[in-house]
Parts: sequence; C-alpha cells; structure tokens
Amino acid sequence: MPYVNIKVTKEDGGLSKEKKAELIDGVTSLLETSLGKNRASTVVIIDEIDTDSYGLGGEQITEVRKRGK
Amino acid sequence: MPYVNIKVTKEDGGLSKEKKAELIDGVTSLLETSLGKNRASTVVIIDEIDTDSYGLGGEQITEVRKRGK
Amino acid sequence: MPYVNIKVTKEDGGLSKEKKAELIDGVTSLLETSLGKNRASTVVIIDEIDTDSYGLGGEQITEVRKRGK
Amino acid sequence: MPYVNIKVTKEDGGLSKEKKAELIDGVTSLLETSLGKNRASTVVIIDEIDTDSYGLGGEQITEVRKRGK
Amino acid sequence: MPYVNIKVTKEDGGLSKEKKAELIDGVTSLLETSLGKNRASTVVIIDEIDTDSYGLGGEQITEVRKRGK
Amino acid sequence: MPYVNIKVTKEDGGLSKEKKAELIDGVTSLLETSLGKNRASTVVIIDEIDTDSYGLGGEQITEVRKRGK
Repeated sequence: MPYVNIKVTKEDGGLSKEKKAELIDGVTSLLETSLGKNRASTVVIIDEIDTDSYGLGGEQITEVRKRGK
Repeated sequence: MPYVNIKVTKEDGGLSKEKKAELIDGVTSLLETSLGKNRASTVVIIDEIDTDSYGLGGEQITEVRKRGK
Repeated sequence: MPYVNIKVTKEDGGLSKEKKAELIDGVTSLLETSLGKNRASTVVIIDEIDTDSYGLGGEQITEVRKRGK
Repeated sequence: MPYVNIKVTKEDGGLSKEKKAELIDGVTSLLETSLGKNRASTVVIIDEIDTDSYGLGGEQITEVRKRGK
Repeated sequence: MPYVNIKVTKEDGGLSKEKKAELIDGVTSLLETSLGKNRASTVVIIDEIDTDSYGLGGEQITEVRKRGK
Repeated sequence: MPYVNIKVTKEDGGLSKEKKAELIDGVTSLLETSLGKNRASTVVIIDEIDTDSYGLGGEQITEVRKRGK
C-alpha cells in the first residue's frame, strides 16, 4: 500500500509508455522485495515537468541543458 | 486553512468543470463539518493524471482498464 | 484508485483516531459517489503539521491563533 | 539540498519563462541566505494549475475571478 | 535530477536506517539505469505515516491490520 | 492563493520558530512581489525531514554529512 511520486523533467517529447511501465514495475518490485510491501495496492504516479518549471541550483533545467549538461 | 490534493486518472476526456466544482465543495464541506476547519482558507487542488503515468499493482491503469476493470 | 492527501494543522494534541477515521471514510465515499471511483484502491493520507510550520498570509498559524482567529 | 514545490493557478496563458526563472532564483536564494542551504542541490518545481481545478473557500478560482477578485 | 517521494506506513517501530538506505539507493539506481537520469542530483524523500493517518478502501490501515491483512 | 511546500533536512535540533517565520514571510513576499499573488491566501508548509530519510545522489544525507559536506 505504499504511495510513490516520481517527478522528472519532460525532455525530447517525454517518456514513452514503455519507459513509464518499466518505472512503475521497477519501483513497485523494489518496495515489494526490499520492504515486503503489498504489491496489489502500491500506487506510483509519474509527473513529467517542463524544463522551464524545474529548477536546480537556482536556474531552469532549460538553461542547464544549454550549457551541455 | 487545510490543504487538500486529489489525484485521479484522466479518463474519457477528463472531469467536467461541474464535477470538479462538486468535488471542491464536497471536500471543503467535509473538513468544515467534521473538523470545524475554516472554509474560507481551505485550498483544494485536483490533479488529473494520464492513465499511462498512474500505476497500481505494478502496472499502468491503461492496462488495468484493458482487462475490463 | 484516487490518491488524496490532506494537510491540517496539529492543534490541541492533534486529531483523535476517530476523527481521522471519519475523514478517511468521508473523502473515500465522496470520490466513490461523486466520481464513481473504486473504493477498494482509494488511498487517503492525513498529515498533521505543527502550527509553527504552517503559514497563511505570510505568518505562522501559531501567530494567527494568538490573535484569536 | 532543499526541495520546494510551488503551485499557482494558470492565468492569462501562464507564467512566462522569465517569471519562472525569477521565482526559481528567488526561492533558491532565500533558502541559501536564510538557512544556509546548499544552492547547487536545491530543487524547485513550479506547477501551474487550471483555475477549474484549484479551489479556495469551497469554490473554483474560475468563479472567484468572475466576481472580480 | 529526478525527485522521488515514497510514503509508507510506519509499522513495528519504523524502517531501520539500513532499509531506508537500501530504498534510496535502489530507487536512484533504477532512475539512472532505466531513464539515464543524473545520479548526483537525484533526491529521494521517505515519509513514514502513522497507520491511523493512512487510509485504504475507506478505512485506517490500523483496522486493516487488525483483520490480519 | 499559491501553495508552497518546502522540504529541508532536520539538522541540529531543527529550525527555530523564528527561522520558520522568516521563511514563510520571505516566500510569501516573493510570490506577492514577483507574481502579484494575493498574500492573504498564500499557504506555506515547511516539512523537516530526518537525515536518514532524505537521499541525495543515492545516499542518505546522514552519510553525506559524515564526509564533511
């Protein structure tokens, strides 16, 4: 019954459906294996955030990417 | 002055404006009646999440829906 | 399968177990009745926040309470 | 290494890239100056919420705006 | 630079420091391997929630546990 | 009417009441000045997170601190 929220920047058109499925399965399995949590009621929500709206070190990821990082 | 965040999957084009209004009023009234909280400063935010980005039981709601649930 | 997070200030020792149960049942029923959401997988998490850590209008709820509000 | 999430209503087409940059820099600087937190690992995420999905005082901001507030 | 928030019920005294470390490393590695995200700036926050404050299916986990689930 | 959530590690006994007040006032003023948001309904919630439960770069802040960072 854990709840997991993952926030990543939306880049190159965003995550594919397959990548999201991989992430959901991976996190759910980790909680099941590592903590013995009930798989059936585990909730995972993925939020993709525009690079203009995501800041790291005081600047937008849009700008961080321009500098080649 | 409570803060409430509701996350639901976005299905069939999403919630109508009227349904959202009903939900906002309903939750606010519940907090007012049940806990005596101040209605005027209660904040409710509804997030609609793509079914590919919402996982339950290790799989996407998109897939859960295909199996007719 | 909705997810709801409720944040309220912790006052007078905090919410009783019964009040929390009432809130969880109330919100879950609202989502079931109003949106037709699946009751069994609805998750509700209540966070009680210290009045020093909760700000409204630029000041702590601790101070708002002292002024008798 | 603080994490900050800012939720504002999306109005008049939303915040410009410049306004978002100003907000990210401003909050990061505040945490650095006021608490001595490490600027490099401070994360700020801005969510813009549709006025139909944002409730205050039991009603949608869309309606609050119509009354001229 | 992803941000992950994990909410689990606090049971039997809570997660050990080692279990939390395992979870933080596991989720960070998953995001690095699966999505190619930068490990150095990945933030993971674990919240342990009292079983009275965590609802599933309209009732408190405290009650769910009493029924032997 | 913005909502802001700030998560910082709890270190050296945690933030003083005065530091929290400074943070709440500072963020609220920034949103008022920079975006013209209504001060009266701005909500700020500060969460202090145990250093064992806060991960950066795949390890606990507890460990990061031991290495003198």
